[in-house]
Amino acid sequence: MNNKVDCTWKGNMSFEAEINDFKIMMDAHEEVGGENKGPRPKPLTLASLGGCTGMDVVSILKKMRIEPSYFNISVDGELTDEHPKYYKNIHVVYTFKGEDLPMEKLKKAIELSRDRYCGVYELLKKGAEITYDIEVMD
Amino acid sequence: MNNKVDCTWKGNMSFEAEINDFKIMMDAHEEVGGENKGPRPKPLTLASLGGCTGMDVVSILKKMRIEPSYFNISVDGELTDEHPKYYKNIHVVYTFKGEDLPMEKLKKAIELSRDRYCGVYELLKKGAEITYDIEVMD
Repeated sequence: MNNKVDCTWKGNMSFEAEINDFKIMMDAHEEVGGENKGPRPKPLTLASLGGCTGMDVVSILKKMRIEPSYFNISVDGELTDEHPKYYKNIHVVYTFKGEDLPMEKLKKAIELSRDRYCGVYELLKKGAEITYDIEVMD
Repeated sequence: MNNKVDCTWKGNMSFEAEINDFKIMMDAHEEVGGENKGPRPKPLTLASLGGCTGMDVVSILKKMRIEPSYFNISVDGELTDEHPKYYKNIHVVYTFKGEDLPMEKLKKAIELSRDRYCGVYELLKKGAEITYDIEVMD
């Protein structure tokens, strides 16, 4: 199966991506000649990872009959110093809120995503060291 | 340097990413239990690649005093058959319109992006085979 996206130049440094019929603007910051009309393209990779593993985790937890009241994934990418600057280390923090959330099951859901389901994790881990933490808040 | 994004669960399969103060919704298709409130997270990786290399290419062409009247990058990712399904092959087509566009310089700009500047290309090529084509239309 193939997925295809189109990125059309909108002048200066801006590009509009068409993904599954949704349009997303990407742009550079003013400091480097852009007009900040949208996010930078590079951190979109991190959002792609966060969304992909997040969807896995909520699906797996649902099957385990666990529903958190809040769930957030923060994805922190550390760039190399030299060009081409890419994310060499990525740290993912899964934060949950809810009553009586069983840590072992949260861990199980995350590791199933990482090892078996998440295609973005699978691709990125071939080039970046990806680590994770779990935070549970009352 | 680090980049950080937050992806917050918005119920069911949807997540809202916050990237450089912009908010982007991601969601699954109805067929797999989502509500299609935003693009799928996986092809966002492809948009990230298209935008990143696209910004390089327009910047480099500008220095070469070349300005196309139209520029589009299509990014086609072929998924593996087995889980975790990830983009094993990615094909990028750079399409330009404009008068007297010198093919050699377009190629030079693209290859400088690929080999020296584009951090998304650099990361993804460690896990995927990335190929490209150039199309020039009158």
